[in-house]
Amino acid sequence: APHAPSLRGVNAASAHLYNAAEEQETTVNAKPADLSGYTRVRQKLVAPPFAPEHEQVATGGPKIVEIALETEERLLVVDEDNGGEIWALTYNGSVPGPLIIVHEGDMVELTLRNPASSMLEHNIDFHASTGALGGGGLTHVFPGEEVVLRWKATKPGCFTYHCAPGGDMIPYHVTHGMNGAIMVLPRDGLKDKDGNPLRYDRIAYFGEQDFYLPKDENGDYRTYEYAGDDYADSLDAMRTLIPTHLVFNGSVGALTGDNAIKAKVGETVLMVHNQANRDSRPHLIGGHGSYVWESSFTDPPMRNMETWFVRGGSAVAAMYTFEQPGVYAYVNHNLIEGIMLGAAAHIKVEGT
Amino acid sequence: APHAPSLRGVNAASAHLYNAAEEQETTVNAKPADLSGYTRVRQKLVAPPFAPEHEQVATGGPKIVEIALETEERLLVVDEDNGGEIWALTYNGSVPGPLIIVHEGDMVELTLRNPASSMLEHNIDFHASTGALGGGGLTHVFPGEEVVLRWKATKPGCFTYHCAPGGDMIPYHVTHGMNGAIMVLPRDGLKDKDGNPLRYDRIAYFGEQDFYLPKDENGDYRTYEYAGDDYADSLDAMRTLIPTHLVFNGSVGALTGDNAIKAKVGETVLMVHNQANRDSRPHLIGGHGSYVWESSFTDPPMRNMETWFVRGGSAVAAMYTFEQPGVYAYVNHNLIEGIMLGAAAHIKVEGT
Amino acid sequence: APHAPSLRGVNAASAHLYNAAEEQETTVNAKPADLSGYTRVRQKLVAPPFAPEHEQVATGGPKIVEIALETEERLLVVDEDNGGEIWALTYNGSVPGPLIIVHEGDMVELTLRNPASSMLEHNIDFHASTGALGGGGLTHVFPGEEVVLRWKATKPGCFTYHCAPGGDMIPYHVTHGMNGAIMVLPRDGLKDKDGNPLRYDRIAYFGEQDFYLPKDENGDYRTYEYAGDDYADSLDAMRTLIPTHLVFNGSVGALTGDNAIKAKVGETVLMVHNQANRDSRPHLIGGHGSYVWESSFTDPPMRNMETWFVRGGSAVAAMYTFEQPGVYAYVNHNLIEGIMLGAAAHIKVEGT
Ligand SMILES: [Cu+2]
Ligand SMILES: [Cu+2]
Ligand SMILES: [Cu+2]
Ligand SMILES: [Cu+2]
Ligand SMILES: [Cu+2]
Ligand SMILES: [Cu+2]
Ligand code: NA
Ligand code: NA
Ligand code: NA
Ligand code: NA
Ligand code: NA
Ligand code: NA
Ligand SMILES: [Zn+2]
Ligand SMILES: [Zn+2]
Ligand SMILES: [Zn+2]
Ligand SMILES: [Zn+2]
Ligand SMILES: [Zn+2]
Ligand SMILES: [Zn+2]
Ligand SMILES: [Zn+2]
Ligand SMILES: [Zn+2]
Ligand SMILES: [Zn+2]
Repeated sequence: APHAPSLRGVNAASAHLYNAAEEQETTVNAKPADLSGYTRVRQKLVAPPFAPEHEQVATGGPKIVEIALETEERLLVVDEDNGGEIWALTYNGSVPGPLIIVHEGDMVELTLRNPASSMLEHNIDFHASTGALGGGGLTHVFPGEEVVLRWKATKPGCFTYHCAPGGDMIPYHVTHGMNGAIMVLPRDGLKDKDGNPLRYDRIAYFGEQDFYLPKDENGDYRTYEYAGDDYADSLDAMRTLIPTHLVFNGSVGALTGDNAIKAKVGETVLMVHNQANRDSRPHLIGGHGSYVWESSFTDPPMRNMETWFVRGGSAVAAMYTFEQPGVYAYVNHNLIEGIMLGAAAHIKVEGT
Repeated sequence: APHAPSLRGVNAASAHLYNAAEEQETTVNAKPADLSGYTRVRQKLVAPPFAPEHEQVATGGPKIVEIALETEERLLVVDEDNGGEIWALTYNGSVPGPLIIVHEGDMVELTLRNPASSMLEHNIDFHASTGALGGGGLTHVFPGEEVVLRWKATKPGCFTYHCAPGGDMIPYHVTHGMNGAIMVLPRDGLKDKDGNPLRYDRIAYFGEQDFYLPKDENGDYRTYEYAGDDYADSLDAMRTLIPTHLVFNGSVGALTGDNAIKAKVGETVLMVHNQANRDSRPHLIGGHGSYVWESSFTDPPMRNMETWFVRGGSAVAAMYTFEQPGVYAYVNHNLIEGIMLGAAAHIKVEGT
Repeated sequence: APHAPSLRGVNAASAHLYNAAEEQETTVNAKPADLSGYTRVRQKLVAPPFAPEHEQVATGGPKIVEIALETEERLLVVDEDNGGEIWALTYNGSVPGPLIIVHEGDMVELTLRNPASSMLEHNIDFHASTGALGGGGLTHVFPGEEVVLRWKATKPGCFTYHCAPGGDMIPYHVTHGMNGAIMVLPRDGLKDKDGNPLRYDRIAYFGEQDFYLPKDENGDYRTYEYAGDDYADSLDAMRTLIPTHLVFNGSVGALTGDNAIKAKVGETVLMVHNQANRDSRPHLIGGHGSYVWESSFTDPPMRNMETWFVRGGSAVAAMYTFEQPGVYAYVNHNLIEGIMLGAAAHIKVEGT
């Protein structure tokens, strides 16, 4: 892997805006926590658009929830129609990374492993955590390294996590797919503004990814041999702020047609939308956001929205109960972004 | 009309992301509704920025509100200063389409007519409705056809409606002007967070339209002979995500100077803002959004906003009582968008 | 100053969208106010990121708060790495202009002075004020002129102020740095949704500025001899809607590293974010927006946000109590904008 050393060099050189990370590795991570009284459970993560097994209302006291993420650099076809492909940087191989679900008061104990075959350094910043750059300052792993990070989920809501290795490598990794969401449920589950319980039958987890694929002088998408080789070209494309592709679950059509999410008439679906970088405005064609949590689960949900908002660098939950059968489209309702750049998914609802 | 067939071909070819529409025409539209007990009324639609005659507090029970929309393809001068013109796709000839106003619980009975002289297929998706792609799956009309769609307004708020014929034709039609708003009032009218009634003296209806006009190699705006001829060029311009024009009511200056909206000191104006595609951030220069409904009328209004937000693909209502005479400007407060691209209107307030 | 006359010419020619301003100078400014019962105080303004001395809970009755702003046109290095510089247009020499703090019910009495050495006309529009284009219609000052504007702060919240001389000069002045924020506190201070007091130990005032610096044919940033010389080139760059730089406090790195804002463990910081033109989405890496006022202080704060939203043309307040030592980064979490274009600041938190 002759490419890795030079990339580490770039990373170090571009660190001037984010050089706080290394510094914190020595200053934080202080008080040894008292973990007596916590039960240990292991959460088996699954690939999006699915959610791991979980309780909506927590039984028993706070737990230590063990999760494992492995960084994986892989060639991903973004759009088979136009030749767009990318050396994606991922957690567990998927874009977005897997959805994690815990309850308020639980401890998250993450093992983050970077296999020796990787080209690049990675880490993880949990927006749900507190201090140490969201964990970013404590989790830098070079190829062949692993690290364990433990933090307490004190704030209920959906939150982004993402790689943030330093400097321009931060937006580079994030716009190469290295982000996902954690949902921190209130111990007694979701509620409406009056405190009435809100329950769902399934979760649809949408990771919206903005890709900025470099083109050659003929306007064709460039190809690269190794992860990281597109670094300089990608920064140029990113600086335009205009993505070439905006997709759910890593590629155009990953969740449409035969790949549609399935639900039944009468079922309530919680749609969790992660966008780690760029604002989005999801809309469910034929349905609504009956309950929408744009801020956190501490606030009462907004009601009956036609289109809701994902502040770039956020995860948001919206709930809808399907009343009629048919195919519903879930889109970023900048319709150029949703239809032409790819941010559209289907939910196929059966029943009567 | 030799152009129509080829465009239908394009439409069919680009349908792979939205092919649910045709499918639903057979699966939905199921249960015959019981319409006994509903009174029938006809709502005479008027051109923007005006609102149709309506009650703020509903008298009597739920009604069937009959409305008629005709698709009209017309050459529109967007900016007489710089030669920008477009073969606009419209409902009833205006950009935005007319404002519709009903009450929660009413049935909307729309007759949608596409005249034989048209070049293109159209349909309509109401964000306020439920199921069948918001009506999009039930309302495809080719030139010379008409269709009747009936749906129940179950959610109170302002909502976008727009054409959504399938594939890339969706953003193409929407960014050619084919969108508007419906306001579904609570039966007992608008209220503040404590349940006190909020009444308005007039409505100012702003449709903000993002246009992406193709240019030739000299940077001059291209002209086209028929509606639809700009299809391929428009998609290229749209893909940049940067509009060439952003206007209220179809053209630069349509609501400024002599065309200003008029009001009086002491009057309360409800500003309804429709943006079917692109985020906006309206501001009333010299005034405020004293009450703003960004989500729906189910939620209490936000208060005293300097600048509010229209999630792209939404309609939003904001209320202000004018305290002083003078000319107020209503702008998209990205001031480049508001002043240079055209999203500015004037409200001329007289009195003392 | 041979440049001034021609620029005034441009200003007059481009006024067709904003010509209301001059008109209002004669129609508003009507009723002489009764100022008996008001105490007079002078607020000494300070440079950002700091806040002027102030009370959180007002003692005594409403006051007349005298402030002085001087327009200053100065050459500003935006990014020393890439040669970006601009003839900034400022209030009191800083980008953003100084933070002003008053209480609801106070009168603001501003003296706005434009020194004779200036090239350009300026004025000021306070989003917090009512009528007269927010003061814009009453405050036009040519070089060598000064004006006094008095208005009552009737709405509590954080609000943008900015220069708005007319036509395309409005976005030109605003995107050259001529904007800042005023905070209008409730007389009894900030509160949570239940009415419990919320107090802060310090304020961090972030002015996010989008710059659109013209480049030459080689892609190097152009330089200009006088303020205003970049007018035509700037409009071309602005029309792309894509900033070349997005910075806090006027330049890349103005608030990072040695220039970091300082705080202590256990302290509560109120982060006031002004963005007069372009949407932003601030995130505190390692922390949260525990209380966020996106609309105004009339509404209860939103809770526990990972990333909040600044509607372009707004000022927003967010509160966080630091639990751990370390360096926190405050970023626009479109990470391309925050890391590559420059919208990042550091807060260095000491203690245990
Ligand atoms: Cu990474
Ligand atoms: Cu982040
Ligand atoms: Cu159409
Ligand atoms: Cu829609
Ligand atoms: Cu100015
Ligand atoms: Cu303004
Ligand atoms: Na965080
Ligand atoms: Na969130
Ligand atoms: Na809908
Ligand atoms: Na709406
Ligand atoms: Na104002
Ligand atoms: Na504000
Ligand atoms: Zn495709
Ligand atoms: Zn490192
Ligand atoms: Zn819809
Ligand atoms: Zn013009
Ligand atoms: Zn069809
Ligand atoms: Zn204003
Ligand atoms: Zn730099
Ligand atoms: Zn003037
Ligand atoms: Zn973070």
